[in-house]
This record gives sequence, C-alpha cells and structure tokens, in this order.
Amino acid sequence: MNRYFITGGAGFIGSNLADRLLALGHCVTVYDNFSTGQRWFIESSLSQPNFRLVEGDTLDASSLERAIEGHDWVFHLAANADVRFGTDHPSRDLQQNTIATHNVLEAMRKTGIKQIAFSSTGSVYGEPTVFPTPEDCPFPVQTSLYAASKLAGEGLISAYCAGFGFKACIFRFVSILGERYSHGHVFDFLRKLKADPARIEVLGNGKQRKSYLYVQDCISAMLHAMERIDAGVHVFNLGAPEYCTVDQSLSWICERIGLQPRRDYSGGERGWIGDSRFIYLDTTRITQLGWKPQISIRQAVIKTVDYLQANPWLFEAR
Amino acid sequence: MNRYFITGGAGFIGSNLADRLLALGHCVTVYDNFSTGQRWFIESSLSQPNFRLVEGDTLDASSLERAIEGHDWVFHLAANADVRFGTDHPSRDLQQNTIATHNVLEAMRKTGIKQIAFSSTGSVYGEPTVFPTPEDCPFPVQTSLYAASKLAGEGLISAYCAGFGFKACIFRFVSILGERYSHGHVFDFLRKLKADPARIEVLGNGKQRKSYLYVQDCISAMLHAMERIDAGVHVFNLGAPEYCTVDQSLSWICERIGLQPRRDYSGGERGWIGDSRFIYLDTTRITQLGWKPQISIRQAVIKTVDYLQANPWLFEAR
Repeated sequence: MNRYFITGGAGFIGSNLADRLLALGHCVTVYDNFSTGQRWFIESSLSQPNFRLVEGDTLDASSLERAIEGHDWVFHLAANADVRFGTDHPSRDLQQNTIATHNVLEAMRKTGIKQIAFSSTGSVYGEPTVFPTPEDCPFPVQTSLYAASKLAGEGLISAYCAGFGFKACIFRFVSILGERYSHGHVFDFLRKLKADPARIEVLGNGKQRKSYLYVQDCISAMLHAMERIDAGVHVFNLGAPEYCTVDQSLSWICERIGLQPRRDYSGGERGWIGDSRFIYLDTTRITQLGWKPQISIRQAVIKTVDYLQANPWLFEAR
Repeated sequence: MNRYFITGGAGFIGSNLADRLLALGHCVTVYDNFSTGQRWFIESSLSQPNFRLVEGDTLDASSLERAIEGHDWVFHLAANADVRFGTDHPSRDLQQNTIATHNVLEAMRKTGIKQIAFSSTGSVYGEPTVFPTPEDCPFPVQTSLYAASKLAGEGLISAYCAGFGFKACIFRFVSILGERYSHGHVFDFLRKLKADPARIEVLGNGKQRKSYLYVQDCISAMLHAMERIDAGVHVFNLGAPEYCTVDQSLSWICERIGLQPRRDYSGGERGWIGDSRFIYLDTTRITQLGWKPQISIRQAVIKTVDYLQANPWLFEAR
C-alpha cells in the first residue's frame, strides 16, 4: 500500500486516478483549489477511510507543505490546462504551471518526499518535424505559453532529480478523453450543437490531425511506468497509436447524437494561435514496458459524448 | 542608430556590450541592480550623452516597464549565473532567471517593444550525446536548476514570438572569458594561487573538457546574428570551434603567472553536482552567417589572467 498525494485530484484525470488508487487499496490525498475541479468528482470517495481531501492552492506554499508531508508519491496534475487563451493572460501559465511546480518540488524536498509523477504535454514538441514524435526528437522551439510553462516544469523536475536525488516520471500527454472530461473539442462541439443543432462552427479547416487517449488507458499507463522505473528522471509520451482529423471526430460525435449539422469552417490550418496542425506521439518507450491502450480514439470519443450527454450539468459548471 | 536596453548592463558581458554599442554610435540604457554588476565597468560611459543608467531590479516589474519604454532592442543579460551552488538556494534561479525573463517580456509587450536578444547557456543540453552539440540535438534532460531556469526563459521568449509577434535571438553561450571577467574557473584558480602559490585544488579530475569564448567575439557574434535574422525566434550556439581540458587551462594560467603549484584533485569526473564533463557546441549555424571568433581559447585565457592580474580589486569585490 502506497500513500499518494494528487494535486488537481478533483479534476478530470486526477479524480479518475484517485478512484483507481482507492480501488487498488492505496491511501489517497487529493489537494485541489476547485478552480476547475468538481466536488461531484470526489463525492463518493469522501466517505472512504483511505481518502483525504485538502482544499488548497499549489501557489500557497505553506498549505502545500503541510498537506504533502507523509506521502510516498506525488502526482502533480494541477495546472492551467487552457492552451487556447494563453495570450489573454500571459502570467497565468507561469504562475499555475511553472511556479506551482516549483512549490510542489520544494514542499517535497522540505518534507523528504522524492517520487513525483508529472502531467506534461505533447505540446512541448512545438511544431515537430518527426511523426510519430519520439521523446528524444530534435530539440523543439516552443509555440505556446502553456507548453513553455510545462517544459519549464519538466526542467525543474529533472534538475531536482539531478540535484536532490528525486525519482520522476514525466508524462507527455496528448488530449485525454473519457468520463468527467469537461474541457476540449468534444465539449465545445456538444455545447455549440446544444445551442444550434443545425450548424456548427469548426475552428480551422477541420483537417488538423490529433491523437487522443482514453483517461483509463492514461491512468493505467502512468501506474505501469511508475512501477517499473529506477532512480532519476524518465520521460514518456502517452497517446494512442493513431490519430484522427477534427472532421472525423466531429462525424463520430454527430453520428452518436443523431445530428447532421452544416459545418462552417473558420479557416486556416490552425484553430487558434498556438494550435497544432498535427499531434501524433511515438509511444514506443511506454509500449516497450508492456502497456497498451484498451480502446481506440473513436471509442474514446463516443464514451466522452455519452458521458457529457448523461451529465449536462457540466455545461453549466464552468 | 538603434536604442538598446541592456538588463545586467553593468556586468561582465553587458558592460562590454554597452561600450561596443556606444562606440558604434547607438543609444544605450543599462538596467542593473548591481548585485554582481560593477559601477567601475560603466564609469567611463556615464559621461556620454547616448548613455543612460537605470538602477533597478528585473523582479521590479513596474520599474522595469518605466525604464524599458522607447527602446528598439532589448538585450536580456541579467541573470543569476552561479551554476555551481544552485542547490543551496533552490528558488534563486527560478526568480532571477525565469520570472525575471517573464517580467522583461511583459514590460516589452506592454510598451510595444518586440525585439529581444537573450543570453542562454549550453548547459541546457544537459548531458549531450552528440559532440559538437548542434542547436537541434536530441531533446535533452536538464541537469541543473540554472539550466532549467534558462531553458524556461527560452521557452517563454519563443512563446512570445509565436503569440505576440516578437522577434528573438536566443544565444546559448559556453563560458565567456576576457576583460571584466569575475566569475568562473580562471577567477577561482587565481584566487586560490594568491592564497597559496605552492599548491592548487582542482575540482574533479582535471579532465573535464570545456569550450570557451572571448567576450569581444561573443559580442560580435550577437550583433552579427541580430542584423541578419527575420521575424520569429532564432537559436544560436556561441562558442569557440575547439575545447580544452581543465588541466590545460590551468597550465596556461600557471605559465602566464610563472608558478608551478602542486595539483590536488578533488576527484571524480565532475567538479560539482550538475557540472558537465564535456561542453563543445556546434557553431555551424552562426558561422554560416559569416561570423568567426578572432582569438583562440588559449589566448582568451591569457587575456583573462592579464586582466585579473591588473585588477586585483575584483578579488575583493565579491
């Protein structure tokens, strides 16, 4: 039995992770400021004896240090995950992703915890020249404040491994889909179709190619890697071994909910400044450890649609 | 005539750069908090009509914003450059390198300045697997808080280029030598030999291989690149097309000052945690633009020794 500390543990991925860890018999502390996390996501865990909730902010260093003490592993998942509107508030990613990660590392160092798993992003590859993109592809140039702030977090974690003997898994995620998803293109498309079932605005030309991963496959991958690594820092791409276009994904969504809206494209190869035209990660490193995803991107999109259709309150919750 | 703003402009590289720009007929504003900068280094510039000194800290966002307004180019050179003792104060690099760079970018954005040159470091390559190491070598893993903080600065600058139309030169320096040098292995060796001319402690096994660059060659390279780039972000390695061992460098120093001390090695392949065994950058990118260094590493070491011998007050100034 391990004692896990999850920043952002009331969020989409964090709360699913907490459920999994509890089911496996571990102790879990969720640390969340509920800025985007949802109390509903951890409601059923609150009554479990192995579960503890601490309401707190990763920018509150002393609260974090008090809460983190006594754990074996830290999952640092709390983040500003809003890539698209980064330029509207140029300090937010620095604060919530880079400085917050520094605070987590300092809280760990001061309390003697040395094992961390970190949710980074395939966006750190910027505009890759190699597809599928491996972890050791050519040194990339950053194209968004979000990715820059996550890369800075990766660098801090790696330096703590070198300087203080930490052990770390850095996971570079594609976009994650599944139960409790409440942010991203499936969410945006469904919200638009609720407002107008006859037409839908598509950002960009619809030909952007993206890989995705189902949240339960993502969690399995993280736990799989963490059980198998030795000291030092280990970087893993996490994604499905496939990709789809925005148009394909929209077709799966429309088919599932029985609509045939007219598609109006905003045009251009990108949906917004910093959007990627093509995200497809080489997951050889994690698959060689014996992990593979259980469901396809199409199945993950459909599960996400079904979840959002069954939980319409999420469209009001933001 | 351009109006240049230099953070850290009273420092080793910054003050030499200010002299060069003034000699070329440009306007120069030096912004420095004199934490490691020296008033002596800018003394002769103070009387020049094209020169302005603003005493201020890059962590003081409002002072920075007031001072930066009205310039064409920003050289962001201010930094905590102490690599070796990073783990003694784990927040310093984040503050003085990453957050300070964010402040510089925000001050620029708010005042409509879009051109920046940044002093990064070859340390961002961590433990490279390719020598000489090109700018697009395999995606590295960070090994020091210093390098992680500089990589974070690079990422921020790149994101401002993508998101706000900035134009940037990011220069990854090897260690710089020459007039006004007051930090690094030549400084440390001379200080030790002043205390005890008969023996010298060498950190590591003396076989660490490092490249260096003469400060005037470094300045020429930066100005050369900045005149030739178009929009967006451009990364350049800056170093000599050669390297030397710590032992060789020590021999040149001892020969110049006429001493033959006994060498006591602290042992190990590294001088300290995070030290690199081998630093040798591929400078094809900048040399293809037409730049090349004027003097060798040996000549640069000798110039540095001569300067420090003529300016013994620097050993008291820290």
